[in-house]
Amino acid sequence: MEKYKIDRIQNSLKENVSEHRYIHTLGVMKAAVNLAKKYNEDEKSAYIAALLHDYAKNFSQKQLNEYMTNNNLYADEIMINAYQLLHGKVAAHIAKTEFNIQNDDILNAIEYHTTGREKMSKLEKIIYLADFIEENRTYHGVEELRKVAYEDLNKAVLQALNNTIKYVLSLEGLLHLNTIEARNSLLIEL
Amino acid sequence: MEKYKIDRIQNSLKENVSEHRYIHTLGVMKAAVNLAKKYNEDEKSAYIAALLHDYAKNFSQKQLNEYMTNNNLYADEIMINAYQLLHGKVAAHIAKTEFNIQNDDILNAIEYHTTGREKMSKLEKIIYLADFIEENRTYHGVEELRKVAYEDLNKAVLQALNNTIKYVLSLEGLLHLNTIEARNSLLIEL
Repeated sequence: MEKYKIDRIQNSLKENVSEHRYIHTLGVMKAAVNLAKKYNEDEKSAYIAALLHDYAKNFSQKQLNEYMTNNNLYADEIMINAYQLLHGKVAAHIAKTEFNIQNDDILNAIEYHTTGREKMSKLEKIIYLADFIEENRTYHGVEELRKVAYEDLNKAVLQALNNTIKYVLSLEGLLHLNTIEARNSLLIEL
Repeated sequence: MEKYKIDRIQNSLKENVSEHRYIHTLGVMKAAVNLAKKYNEDEKSAYIAALLHDYAKNFSQKQLNEYMTNNNLYADEIMINAYQLLHGKVAAHIAKTEFNIQNDDILNAIEYHTTGREKMSKLEKIIYLADFIEENRTYHGVEELRKVAYEDLNKAVLQALNNTIKYVLSLEGLLHLNTIEARNSLLIEL
């Protein structure tokens, strides 16, 4: 991808997310490229997907809902009730329509980076995982997950999914079926 | 239902389950009838559903698979990989075809007693919960759940679903989507 295009995305991102979110994004880009190197995935794809994954993360509920409606995007009942889950879908649509990203693997990695989904591609797994292990993350267990991430991609993704499910249970939140299907398909695959 | 018919089911059950399972079944029947009284559900339906819920619990994997095939019953990928999940479906089919139970609510309560499902009926909730709180159960937390069961049916079912999900995670087992949908729909409803 041409440098000016990357610059345009980066400038637009800066206008749409908080400084905290922008720093996180830089961390995810770094982790995603490192994981791509380790697991023979296309580094540029990892870079672009990471750059755009949280583009809509600081959108308000109203902004997300309006974007979904205006673009005829479908939200299931869980997404409607846990609107934060919409930000991946909205970001993927912006990536495609605003920044002309046409690579479906990149778009899917952006769209499913929060929930995961059944039978994730290698790039999807890398972005999902990079989001959890990027250098600014400090939660309990992150060091262990970083270690596993560079030993066994599937095992690390499974661990991240398990952590997510336990966390959502602790919050008494809704569990998206994609997360459960991601975990089931990895367990069956492993 | 006529007494001779109940006797026939009870005798057939004794031939198909272990003594341990039979004693458990008597406990579930007692709990289910008590919950039915408490929550104004039909006591006879609760009695019959509880009586038959574990009819196929001691079937071997081979027996369950053969029964499914011979009767053209559909098993999803999770059930195929966690064959114990099949016993509710098989028991519901036996209840209908062998013992002529035609009440769909009873049949559903039998079929979904292990996984739960989205938008469970009151009878389904009662059987699901009775299975967890019957007097022979001794696991950590059962006293607390018994207490909640007679205070708030939905809250108790939610607690039982949460316990199940945590337990399956601890075993690194597959999570059936019905269980997640049961929990989500209760959370949205509550």
